[in-house]
Amino acid sequence: MDATLSAARRSWVASAQAPDADFPIQNLPFGVFADPASAAGRVGVAIGDRILDVVAALDAGLITGHAADAAEACRGGSLNGLMTLGRPAASALRHAIGELLTDDGAAPSGTRQRVGRLLVPIADVRMHLPATVGDYTDFYASVFHATNVGRLFRPDAPLLPNYKYVPIGYHGRASSLVPSGTPVARPSGQTKGPDAATPSFGPTRMLDYEAELGFFIASGSDGASAGDDRVSITDAESRIFGVCLVNDWSARDIQSWEYQPLGPFLSKSFATSVSPWVVTMDALAPFRVPAYERPAGDPAPLPYLAASGAGGIDLTIEVSLQSAAMRERGTPAVRLSRGNVRDLYWTLAQMVTHHTSNGCPLRPGDLLASGTVSGPTPDSLGCLLEMTRRGADRITLPGGETRAFLEPGDEVIIRGYCARPGATRIGLGHCSGIVG
Amino acid sequence: MDATLSAARRSWVASAQAPDADFPIQNLPFGVFADPASAAGRVGVAIGDRILDVVAALDAGLITGHAADAAEACRGGSLNGLMTLGRPAASALRHAIGELLTDDGAAPSGTRQRVGRLLVPIADVRMHLPATVGDYTDFYASVFHATNVGRLFRPDAPLLPNYKYVPIGYHGRASSLVPSGTPVARPSGQTKGPDAATPSFGPTRMLDYEAELGFFIASGSDGASAGDDRVSITDAESRIFGVCLVNDWSARDIQSWEYQPLGPFLSKSFATSVSPWVVTMDALAPFRVPAYERPAGDPAPLPYLAASGAGGIDLTIEVSLQSAAMRERGTPAVRLSRGNVRDLYWTLAQMVTHHTSNGCPLRPGDLLASGTVSGPTPDSLGCLLEMTRRGADRITLPGGETRAFLEPGDEVIIRGYCARPGATRIGLGHCSGIVG
Repeated sequence: MDATLSAARRSWVASAQAPDADFPIQNLPFGVFADPASAAGRVGVAIGDRILDVVAALDAGLITGHAADAAEACRGGSLNGLMTLGRPAASALRHAIGELLTDDGAAPSGTRQRVGRLLVPIADVRMHLPATVGDYTDFYASVFHATNVGRLFRPDAPLLPNYKYVPIGYHGRASSLVPSGTPVARPSGQTKGPDAATPSFGPTRMLDYEAELGFFIASGSDGASAGDDRVSITDAESRIFGVCLVNDWSARDIQSWEYQPLGPFLSKSFATSVSPWVVTMDALAPFRVPAYERPAGDPAPLPYLAASGAGGIDLTIEVSLQSAAMRERGTPAVRLSRGNVRDLYWTLAQMVTHHTSNGCPLRPGDLLASGTVSGPTPDSLGCLLEMTRRGADRITLPGGETRAFLEPGDEVIIRGYCARPGATRIGLGHCSGIVG
Repeated sequence: MDATLSAARRSWVASAQAPDADFPIQNLPFGVFADPASAAGRVGVAIGDRILDVVAALDAGLITGHAADAAEACRGGSLNGLMTLGRPAASALRHAIGELLTDDGAAPSGTRQRVGRLLVPIADVRMHLPATVGDYTDFYASVFHATNVGRLFRPDAPLLPNYKYVPIGYHGRASSLVPSGTPVARPSGQTKGPDAATPSFGPTRMLDYEAELGFFIASGSDGASAGDDRVSITDAESRIFGVCLVNDWSARDIQSWEYQPLGPFLSKSFATSVSPWVVTMDALAPFRVPAYERPAGDPAPLPYLAASGAGGIDLTIEVSLQSAAMRERGTPAVRLSRGNVRDLYWTLAQMVTHHTSNGCPLRPGDLLASGTVSGPTPDSLGCLLEMTRRGADRITLPGGETRAFLEPGDEVIIRGYCARPGATRIGLGHCSGIVG
């Protein structure tokens, strides 16, 4: 962990010091924002309820040395440039920005005023996708999710024989990635009821969310091309720039009819929402924990996936829902579930290593996601398919509405954060969308 | 069909007049080439064994009017700009270039000499991918392929119930697309023999090719953003810029262990080869035929996929193989199969319409592929998995070598062409790769 961003540090930005702040000075996530009137994105770092404009700070002479090289890479208006430089460059930039925002009085006189003029309220901007994503890959790393879903289709053998050996994943669609807040139109598609003779085409009746952890790829730590090598399990974390939240919206009725034999396709590619702030692996360091402990009897990972150390992350993911009726009444969103990334069967590093084990090039800015983060308890299930057992057990919302799947006007809000006694809370912000 | 490029036309470029030429003046496909010493790609049009440098012709004042706007869009060094303008703009440019290269004497005096100086021998350049591909989607449109593959896994029910309703496809990997001629390293991965207790990790022993037709996406004919609308079946062809050849290299042992439940992943994403020349739909016009006639008893396509007219293409795809030993002896590649795109169960238009039926954005430069083009006869099977029935029936090469799957040093060459009496042959060139 970067000592300069230790728990003792505080920022002079007052909103960063609230106990429930997502973006204290220990976090400093990267994102891309735009003036609502402008299409051009600018790289920023979040502090409290403000954003520091990185290129504006560079141009004001506030960022120097190695960090200035990293800040130069932000001129493209996406994080791809910084991701191409690799994690050490991003760490240097984050460190330098931390110095500008810290409350220890070490900065030269007047700096605080100059920095203050470059801060933009988050509430005043529109957030873009953090990076131009070349390829998006979605994994299936929660054994609880895989088991629950499998049980709905194959009660006697919920988990397929490959699951405990292979970090199962599939190629997702990059063109349908949208920033948090984008409305999600209800997709149409082919569906076929179990008793219907033939399929029909129309709007999905089983629209669902999936709460996931996303992570962006950086070049190797040598700054070299990111696309030419298998990544060993020991190097894999050096290729993870940081994490975000992902909602892998899913049309379950389309999915069940289309998915054999080549996997999910149109049931997913209508929209995938991504939260705007990329929280660095440096910021997550105080919350690293041992990887999920496999139950006795489970096979060990094959050697190319075997790792020791703190491969897990103690990161809570909560899903809340606010229906149109609740919004109208002023009833706040109600929490549906609370899962934790530490319960994933496969670590982020294992997913990266497996992904490149065939020589597949990962490029800076590529997005990987964990798959639905579900845990072992009924209150930790990250999608409605699991919670309602494909609609069999409807859930009740405040005011008496019930849900099997999402209804028009429902807003789904996913939040992520790391918190434990003695450590400063690190938030991922939120990923939301209202469905049609 | 563009009358100016009718069968009667001839080019003054002598090599374009050979009866077996891939690139007569009736073709004029677009591609991206580079001087071997330069990384920068340039858009070119193939004529015989030469390439006309489009931007050089523009800068020389040889392209004017609407066609000049289209040529301007080629400055980016990929076809994405032209694909963003849409098919009418590309047609205007192709027409103007046809005028420069035609032998009718209508061009101003001296033009032929000026154009001649801008022609580059294809043999002297390195070809790039034609476009920067945002997303790559692979379909499964040959019912013969699907049936043959299905029979290997499910002898009693080779074809799944969704096949005749859904143009089955999956998201492929854009980062592993490579230009024809790129060597293909043998991928490693997890495999598990039927009698093995556990899987192991190592080089694939079942490396295969898949001969496919690729097609690139253009913006709508209004030139507007390509990413915001469902594309109706009647509009779908207006969104297809042109076609190429694709080799979807596949590791069958990795595929069979990993593919459930989310589909093929690392068994495909190590390399997908793409031929360099994009043959326009205009050039294919004389070879359009009715769509595949569904056998009696098959369901009609659902209304959103129902079309009349010449949805098919009479386009032959041949696969040849030359082993290292054959190459050393000077034995030419031997043809393994000859299939035809007219045998596909789903048309290109149906694939486009289905792909966007859920609202999924297609972007200019996106690549779609047909899946393995196999026909009803044993000599028309587009991959070794089918030809050898997963290795059960080895094939014999000249000199007595046999193959179940590809061996180190094997070169696979896929050729595509349209030919029939009375029409000028239109070639797609070839897509090749030597495997490790």
